[in-house]
Amino acid sequence: MKRQNAIAAPLADFAPEHFRLAIDGGIATITLNRPERKNPLTFESYAELRDTFHALRFDDAVKAVVITGAGGNFSSGGDVFEIIEPLTKMEAAELHAFTTMTGDLVKEMRACPQPVVAAVEGVCAGAGAIMAMASDMRVGAADAKVAFLFNRVGLAGCDMGACAILPRLIGQGRASELLYTGRFMGAEEGERWGFFNRLTETGGAFDAAMEMATALTEGPTYANSVTKKMLQMEWAMGVDEAIDAEAIAQALCMKTGDFRRAFEAFAAKQKPVFAGN
Amino acid sequence: MKRQNAIAAPLADFAPEHFRLAIDGGIATITLNRPERKNPLTFESYAELRDTFHALRFDDAVKAVVITGAGGNFSSGGDVFEIIEPLTKMEAAELHAFTTMTGDLVKEMRACPQPVVAAVEGVCAGAGAIMAMASDMRVGAADAKVAFLFNRVGLAGCDMGACAILPRLIGQGRASELLYTGRFMGAEEGERWGFFNRLTETGGAFDAAMEMATALTEGPTYANSVTKKMLQMEWAMGVDEAIDAEAIAQALCMKTGDFRRAFEAFAAKQKPVFAGN
Amino acid sequence: MKRQNAIAAPLADFAPEHFRLAIDGGIATITLNRPERKNPLTFESYAELRDTFHALRFDDAVKAVVITGAGGNFSSGGDVFEIIEPLTKMEAAELHAFTTMTGDLVKEMRACPQPVVAAVEGVCAGAGAIMAMASDMRVGAADAKVAFLFNRVGLAGCDMGACAILPRLIGQGRASELLYTGRFMGAEEGERWGFFNRLTETGGAFDAAMEMATALTEGPTYANSVTKKMLQMEWAMGVDEAIDAEAIAQALCMKTGDFRRAFEAFAAKQKPVFAGN
Repeated sequence: MKRQNAIAAPLADFAPEHFRLAIDGGIATITLNRPERKNPLTFESYAELRDTFHALRFDDAVKAVVITGAGGNFSSGGDVFEIIEPLTKMEAAELHAFTTMTGDLVKEMRACPQPVVAAVEGVCAGAGAIMAMASDMRVGAADAKVAFLFNRVGLAGCDMGACAILPRLIGQGRASELLYTGRFMGAEEGERWGFFNRLTETGGAFDAAMEMATALTEGPTYANSVTKKMLQMEWAMGVDEAIDAEAIAQALCMKTGDFRRAFEAFAAKQKPVFAGN
Repeated sequence: MKRQNAIAAPLADFAPEHFRLAIDGGIATITLNRPERKNPLTFESYAELRDTFHALRFDDAVKAVVITGAGGNFSSGGDVFEIIEPLTKMEAAELHAFTTMTGDLVKEMRACPQPVVAAVEGVCAGAGAIMAMASDMRVGAADAKVAFLFNRVGLAGCDMGACAILPRLIGQGRASELLYTGRFMGAEEGERWGFFNRLTETGGAFDAAMEMATALTEGPTYANSVTKKMLQMEWAMGVDEAIDAEAIAQALCMKTGDFRRAFEAFAAKQKPVFAGN
Repeated sequence: MKRQNAIAAPLADFAPEHFRLAIDGGIATITLNRPERKNPLTFESYAELRDTFHALRFDDAVKAVVITGAGGNFSSGGDVFEIIEPLTKMEAAELHAFTTMTGDLVKEMRACPQPVVAAVEGVCAGAGAIMAMASDMRVGAADAKVAFLFNRVGLAGCDMGACAILPRLIGQGRASELLYTGRFMGAEEGERWGFFNRLTETGGAFDAAMEMATALTEGPTYANSVTKKMLQMEWAMGVDEAIDAEAIAQALCMKTGDFRRAFEAFAAKQKPVFAGN
């Protein structure tokens, strides 16, 4: 059965205005694309990204997502004149609507069933750092530098889930420093701390991320979506409850054809070919 | 007072069929013992391991546990023909009973009052990786390689608590990669990431684990059991509630003879000799 | 509006008996000061520390805190004859009152709005290690060595929140080892594991901590206090709830003058000067 959704348009029909979207070989590639400004975000691009990740819930053809930036940088975050200036003039309810929208982008990234791999080159700051953080895995190029720089613009570090997610990636003490100072974390530091899963030479992050995404599409993609769901669901569960939740989820996965196909392939001394169901 | 249990047999009466069990000097050593197959697990060995860890709750003579594998490997996990093949033919309720049994093994490992030290040589995969993960501490030999390979057999990474426990050991990003890919984590990587507490040369993991376990048996073993209980209990608590819970637990420990003995020894400039009560 | 509190005395009126307290340039420096005994804690110093951190809630003039020890050591923890001996003679209720007091010290350190930076030289043990752990950030000198040595005096590792907080700083496996063994963690190990944010040469920790604290006072200090509050509040929240909580908190911060000042400075190509409101 296809994922059902009467309202959402299929992702292939999306023609985003504010970034490039390519779907090929089961991989949706999102490329932030204002390279002359280091790919900043605007009100419209936040909303469009949120809607794109939402649409991914209902798109069976996409098995993994790569997010990256054009022109050697990931993203410089919210644009100073297109985002920050208007925010300084808004009333409370309007500001809350904005922070809800940006938070919803992270919620959608974590709710879509496809694992998301961020390919980070150059500057990755503010909301850009958040999108990298909210991804399931991260590849960093040697020149990647990541700043949760909210503090530098007079804001708190608690933006789009950073006080919850970043400590789980790199530890509470290191996350505290990054959030209190807004300083850049370098590529090697980021790998050493567990932010980056892999480092590449400058210019190589996208290819490495595509390699990871391709491997994901060749795996048991429905089971991968269950892994993603459970990593999120167990975030604040006790251990015994998490074990019980996994017993049910894994029993479900044992009813998939992919599990049977894997056994049959092993018995025949072949490499399993998964179908994602 | 001895731990009371009318039903469970004392551990010394256990004669497990599917692994070796030795009790000596307050240390129970569990050795998975089908070296010609790299110590895979079967339905029967899962159940027997679960029951052994359950019995440890009631065995005052055992103060620490070492778990290891015979013949240079820890465990290759669930056997392909003895576990995976039958699972492909089961109905949902039976599958759920199986995943509940395997999950219960982890619950019992974490509920027994004795700290568990895993001594990992060679292959440590699938349910083997889970048993290492569920232990309190881990020693890895230079040739240890650990794979949460559920993904490779068409399943989700959420097996026996992995999506809850592994991220707390090595960070959410690194755990995600291991669970989405099923790839092996090497010994040095495992130490660098916090999975292994200590590395040894190949063949040395068991001796190092016994050294750690011996030190545990010479410590205040009742207090150690409280440490274990609280590490588990506070998993998903808020900080203030955790502090309150610890205030009660530590006040209880201050009423132990071991605390008094420690003071008396310090006052007499001697090394304390603990009695575990 | 000033923080309101009818009862608590302003911090400037505090003349602590058991440590040095200096307030300068928006930084409160707490120096444990019994160097001939490596700055142990006593019943009175615990209470006075707790009350000082409590008073910080209401002191608008203090924007950051540095805690350190005099004479080349941080703190050797609870004094053997002034704390441990009397504890061995107390009844349960009295013990619980003591552990509540020490736990309240950690609660107050984490509840005060100012980020706390620990400057750790030499010995940092027992309750000393806890105070370093409970700080927001930590600088370690090359000779720093940190032991959660409760186990060595016959107690459990669950002291003042250690079983909750330490695993989030350095990972569950490494924290387990330190709490089960009471062994010292060295400076380099502590940095590699994420306990220390920065290492200095011996004798350099205080200056580096003051540098970090000074940078904090020059930042948007109200927003920093929101970061601190949210890091604590989101400790055991689900991800989506944390994102919602941050959307509200950050919308509030967008109504601060500091946010507006930051924008105006960027627009004028100047460095922002924050006012902490």
